[in-house]
Amino acid sequence: MTELAAVKAALKTQAVETPSWAYGNSGTRFKVFAQQGVPRTPQEKLDDAAQVHAFTGVAPTVALHIPWDKVEDYAALAGHAEDRGVKLGAINSNTFQDDDYKLGSICAPDPAVRRKAVDHLLECVDIMDATGSKDLKLWFADGTNYPGQDDIRARQDRLAEGLAEVYERLGDDQRMLLEYKFFEPAFYTTDVPDWGTAYAHCLKLGPKAQVVVDTGHHAPGTNIEFIVATLLREDKLGAFDFNSRFYADDDLMVGAADPFQLFRIMYEVIRGGGFTSDVAFMLDQCHNVEAKIPAIIRSVMNVQEATAKALLVDRAALGEAQASGDVLEANAVLMDAYNTDVRPLLREVREEMGLDPDPVSAYRRSGWAERIVAERVGGEQAGWGA
Amino acid sequence: MTELAAVKAALKTQAVETPSWAYGNSGTRFKVFAQQGVPRTPQEKLDDAAQVHAFTGVAPTVALHIPWDKVEDYAALAGHAEDRGVKLGAINSNTFQDDDYKLGSICAPDPAVRRKAVDHLLECVDIMDATGSKDLKLWFADGTNYPGQDDIRARQDRLAEGLAEVYERLGDDQRMLLEYKFFEPAFYTTDVPDWGTAYAHCLKLGPKAQVVVDTGHHAPGTNIEFIVATLLREDKLGAFDFNSRFYADDDLMVGAADPFQLFRIMYEVIRGGGFTSDVAFMLDQCHNVEAKIPAIIRSVMNVQEATAKALLVDRAALGEAQASGDVLEANAVLMDAYNTDVRPLLREVREEMGLDPDPVSAYRRSGWAERIVAERVGGEQAGWGA
Amino acid sequence: MTELAAVKAALKTQAVETPSWAYGNSGTRFKVFAQQGVPRTPQEKLDDAAQVHAFTGVAPTVALHIPWDKVEDYAALAGHAEDRGVKLGAINSNTFQDDDYKLGSICAPDPAVRRKAVDHLLECVDIMDATGSKDLKLWFADGTNYPGQDDIRARQDRLAEGLAEVYERLGDDQRMLLEYKFFEPAFYTTDVPDWGTAYAHCLKLGPKAQVVVDTGHHAPGTNIEFIVATLLREDKLGAFDFNSRFYADDDLMVGAADPFQLFRIMYEVIRGGGFTSDVAFMLDQCHNVEAKIPAIIRSVMNVQEATAKALLVDRAALGEAQASGDVLEANAVLMDAYNTDVRPLLREVREEMGLDPDPVSAYRRSGWAERIVAERVGGEQAGWGA
Amino acid sequence: MTELAAVKAALKTQAVETPSWAYGNSGTRFKVFAQQGVPRTPQEKLDDAAQVHAFTGVAPTVALHIPWDKVEDYAALAGHAEDRGVKLGAINSNTFQDDDYKLGSICAPDPAVRRKAVDHLLECVDIMDATGSKDLKLWFADGTNYPGQDDIRARQDRLAEGLAEVYERLGDDQRMLLEYKFFEPAFYTTDVPDWGTAYAHCLKLGPKAQVVVDTGHHAPGTNIEFIVATLLREDKLGAFDFNSRFYADDDLMVGAADPFQLFRIMYEVIRGGGFTSDVAFMLDQCHNVEAKIPAIIRSVMNVQEATAKALLVDRAALGEAQASGDVLEANAVLMDAYNTDVRPLLREVREEMGLDPDPVSAYRRSGWAERIVAERVGGEQAGWGA
Repeated sequence: MTELAAVKAALKTQAVETPSWAYGNSGTRFKVFAQQGVPRTPQEKLDDAAQVHAFTGVAPTVALHIPWDKVEDYAALAGHAEDRGVKLGAINSNTFQDDDYKLGSICAPDPAVRRKAVDHLLECVDIMDATGSKDLKLWFADGTNYPGQDDIRARQDRLAEGLAEVYERLGDDQRMLLEYKFFEPAFYTTDVPDWGTAYAHCLKLGPKAQVVVDTGHHAPGTNIEFIVATLLREDKLGAFDFNSRFYADDDLMVGAADPFQLFRIMYEVIRGGGFTSDVAFMLDQCHNVEAKIPAIIRSVMNVQEATAKALLVDRAALGEAQASGDVLEANAVLMDAYNTDVRPLLREVREEMGLDPDPVSAYRRSGWAERIVAERVGGEQAGWGA
Repeated sequence: MTELAAVKAALKTQAVETPSWAYGNSGTRFKVFAQQGVPRTPQEKLDDAAQVHAFTGVAPTVALHIPWDKVEDYAALAGHAEDRGVKLGAINSNTFQDDDYKLGSICAPDPAVRRKAVDHLLECVDIMDATGSKDLKLWFADGTNYPGQDDIRARQDRLAEGLAEVYERLGDDQRMLLEYKFFEPAFYTTDVPDWGTAYAHCLKLGPKAQVVVDTGHHAPGTNIEFIVATLLREDKLGAFDFNSRFYADDDLMVGAADPFQLFRIMYEVIRGGGFTSDVAFMLDQCHNVEAKIPAIIRSVMNVQEATAKALLVDRAALGEAQASGDVLEANAVLMDAYNTDVRPLLREVREEMGLDPDPVSAYRRSGWAERIVAERVGGEQAGWGA
Repeated sequence: MTELAAVKAALKTQAVETPSWAYGNSGTRFKVFAQQGVPRTPQEKLDDAAQVHAFTGVAPTVALHIPWDKVEDYAALAGHAEDRGVKLGAINSNTFQDDDYKLGSICAPDPAVRRKAVDHLLECVDIMDATGSKDLKLWFADGTNYPGQDDIRARQDRLAEGLAEVYERLGDDQRMLLEYKFFEPAFYTTDVPDWGTAYAHCLKLGPKAQVVVDTGHHAPGTNIEFIVATLLREDKLGAFDFNSRFYADDDLMVGAADPFQLFRIMYEVIRGGGFTSDVAFMLDQCHNVEAKIPAIIRSVMNVQEATAKALLVDRAALGEAQASGDVLEANAVLMDAYNTDVRPLLREVREEMGLDPDPVSAYRRSGWAERIVAERVGGEQAGWGA
Repeated sequence: MTELAAVKAALKTQAVETPSWAYGNSGTRFKVFAQQGVPRTPQEKLDDAAQVHAFTGVAPTVALHIPWDKVEDYAALAGHAEDRGVKLGAINSNTFQDDDYKLGSICAPDPAVRRKAVDHLLECVDIMDATGSKDLKLWFADGTNYPGQDDIRARQDRLAEGLAEVYERLGDDQRMLLEYKFFEPAFYTTDVPDWGTAYAHCLKLGPKAQVVVDTGHHAPGTNIEFIVATLLREDKLGAFDFNSRFYADDDLMVGAADPFQLFRIMYEVIRGGGFTSDVAFMLDQCHNVEAKIPAIIRSVMNVQEATAKALLVDRAALGEAQASGDVLEANAVLMDAYNTDVRPLLREVREEMGLDPDPVSAYRRSGWAERIVAERVGGEQAGWGA
């Protein structure tokens, strides 16, 4: 196989999981702008996600959020997905929208609240059993807003205890993916604020616990690709939540704010063996002002383009320049791949996969957007349910 | 008058305006946690604000937010306030919660949307005429989320045009206060992102246009007291929106995150003549997890404490140390004031004003909290109305 | 002329000024790593700069730094430059390396220090008269390290007074370019910390005073292209100091850290008319670990590539998408230009200019690097002279 | 023992290690401003450090930096210290100032450079044996400036290998303290950029390896007290390098930029048992513009004041408020301690220790400053030796 053929082959195997909630309405604390045609049910979210997969070919699974996507019959939901050509993916827990979570969930000072939170997580594992999902993705909004509000260290003890109970419940093929976040919605402490904290907990829990890197969840200036390389070296990188940001957790389309960073991240993924391992590549975005389905298509394409560029890096030449200490040449080898326009290559890949080379245009021509606006009338549009 | 007497006299004249919306519910994009006893009407917000003034003695006015505080009869609303011992303060516009403001208001690409936004601002001036308010406080959520989304410069032209029309409408005793904000809810560009932009617009508008410094609206690391000193030097500091932050626009209680910064800001205010001029000192906070009225009382007290410390700086000794280039001594003079415990002094001030020396305890003993929980049953609690 | 021909024509007229000091040694406070072959005299710096112009064709001028580049006979220095195919550019002042500048220069509390600083600036204008330089570029290291160390506002008064005296001395065709910087070497206040401060001073000085945007001199997250658009709108953008950063004022090769940002900046330059006006495009970089001359060649090429992409933006399509509020399409039009590989185009441009299409390789083949290592033996290598 | 007596007793046992290099000259990359009377030898640095201890009573040890403090006879140096009433403390390695460290030391691509770096660290352990020092403090300037410059992951492998060799060499009572730093002098990647990386390495090395928290080495907005609490919980907090910052690693006097943060850190130290364990409290500061000895005295006092306030927190009341979810009361309990003026208490502590209650004044009156200016004439002043 020629090198280019290998790159193409790799690109064809790529899988980017899209999140059910990105198809619903989202916004800021100031306003959620509703959009026409937004899904009203988990099934309709899956219908939209199936469109993204139909046009990109690399978005075969859909992450669920519980209770936003709660249904009576998860087997039926899985069947609905499969009928449309996609599968159910990770189960995401939600322990931040009940009134008694005001001071935290799994870390809350009140033991009854902690019990409720852990029970919710256990229920999520039940749902995983029903859906066949492999990954339990945990993000906690837990933290404090004011110095003194709660005991920082006691909250870590509570966190460890709660996670351990859930970990025990996992099946052999199931993983716990623990996400960290710098801040928001808590504004003084966050109980899992950085990769180090998530890593330390996962290490104690065991091999089925791994860390999630959400690309928008870092302090300003953080070198994310360093974290990716380090977690892969420690065999603790479980998944990505892809999105992009200029300021905080802006949840913009991945690759929109800093495409060079996305390329560097994908390079470290590939270099560290993460592309062919079980690292899960997920989107976690909010399309507040742009049309949702084409924004998700574009996001998937952005991941593909960054991946293609990263695959094109001449690693032999790079290694040689690095070993010889030729700073400019090493940088030039990397930049040469980044500066390549990989869109023609990806058009070829899509054609070879039997897809339209231009997924956004194809989607626009498909009439789906008009159809859902026409059909999805009445009912309550999906959103964050806050 | 002894120096301490002068400090006390100054503290007794202090006025901190509280915002009507801080008495209602607020939250993050993830969840608004409702609290018991929250006001359901503008009148009830004024009732709560009157409590803050009753116990602190230095919160005599209340800012309104239109349309959140829209009423039929503003004269009656002003009367309601005065009956309870407070007055109506600044009018705050809201051009970010209608569906057609999705891509901006006064800067939106659609001229019809801009017209609507400017009309809203003109209506706010009408309301000022009715309430006797002196200040129109403008904060725009305008901006873009993606590179290319709109023309950065054209948006400035639209902004200038809209502001000019509103400026023309102001009465002789009315001011336009223009607020800047680093980011949120827009995540790529914000149309008034920094003091320089607000200043440049105010300069062209004329003497009735001045800048608002919201202490939570800056890039990480920004030296806010420098901006305060500079705006005072330029005679363009119109008002403060006080709050505090660890990360972004966290809207915590002022003085909660960095009391030393608040002291430095108040020192520059006093040094620059802003304490005895018409700079308006307002709170703009969100009490997401803490009880609202006592949080606002505490915030007012925090401003008082910072002010007291700033007033206690030995400016003669400071000037001498500065002139002689004695870095450590100059710093020590400033820190000496900061390290002073001014709470006994403020207790005296309150007692001399006929108030309880401990406003929080007095409020807690007053029964108001229990009363509003009991009485404010049913109806819709006030919030941001998003 | 076809559109592509117009793009090429524009690229051929581009001029990027390189700084004499970038050819000398630089480093961090921890260590300056010396490199072989580094110039020992202003003349040798010009020799190196001439190489950059010879291979890129778009670096025709060289900025001087006084006193680092002080010579007896500036006319002779200008002649030396012209003999090698380049010209002398902006004169950069240095008021931060004498022992009496410890507490500032033009803003220092000691009037004698301020006098010395202003005299240095006036001397720089004398040198401009001798060299024919048009621009006086002012960056002040002035500021304070500790709260209270000096009077923030008094320092502004001193700054204004000093600048006014220098402004008066300028000839009809000369400009004063005032640079701002977020922090460093001062760690509490900086006397010109942001564009707003520089703008306010320039406004009062008059039309010959304009602002310099150094791309590394901003708070984390600052939207630099917004500042560029705003300063162009105000006719106050005088020059760029190009470099790039991940953290602070890292002074890396421009385009190395965030090539997408550089593209967005160049797009605003072109959109705002700054490409065909007298905005000066200068580099200000430190090549601490990489070979200096090829790093500067690469930097010039990075500016060219960003410019080419910005020129390729389909502005009609962009305007249409913006006007219609199609967020995704507007973003896509911009990204389409950014994602284009412009290197083939630039190779053509160079060939049409009679240059080698690959400046870095051509430089490497030229033997200049080996020659300067062999010839520049003994003497004292140029550096920051700290 | 009354509670206040216990607080006093704790304060009398406090020990803050001062760094030999803080007595020498330091500066920024722009300029090192020399000061009069600066030590010229390790012995003279110890003489100055002994003054700090003489006046504060809580600075009994002095950290050395190798090779800056290299001497022939370390036993004699230790004797010199003891003669003056202090002891030698941690040994700090320096692998960043030789020319061959340009691309790194222990992580460099060149094995010979790595060998040299490890040998230096082993030599430092030899010196520890000679001085009786217990702690080897490691800070590496290693990193890269440009994407692609070197292989991020391979550098981690090299780091692990080098550290392991040094760890093996440690005696039973010796520790390896690994410091992390966000950035500088490397501007793209840093090989130990955050606590997570340091923690992961220490964990693998074993119980004698612990993490150093330098309070200036974090990304903007990082919650340092959270890291302190977490490392204490993991039994991996080895030491502090105290200083303060507004922007980057400004190395200002500890407590000068954010005294409230220092208080919060000390509270977590005490709450987590770090005050009575073997956590080492060290200063690491640069007194670029202020007099060095009084600045260090002031820094030690700032640590004392923060400690006193933290000791005064009413932990029973705090715990009760936290358990009951009373956010405002919990915050108020903490703030009550912070707002207390502890200077009178510390004056008492000093008097009970037989010291002058005002160390800075006592130092100024002692004549030491004048004496060293008079005596330390000629020779080469100590500095960073870059």
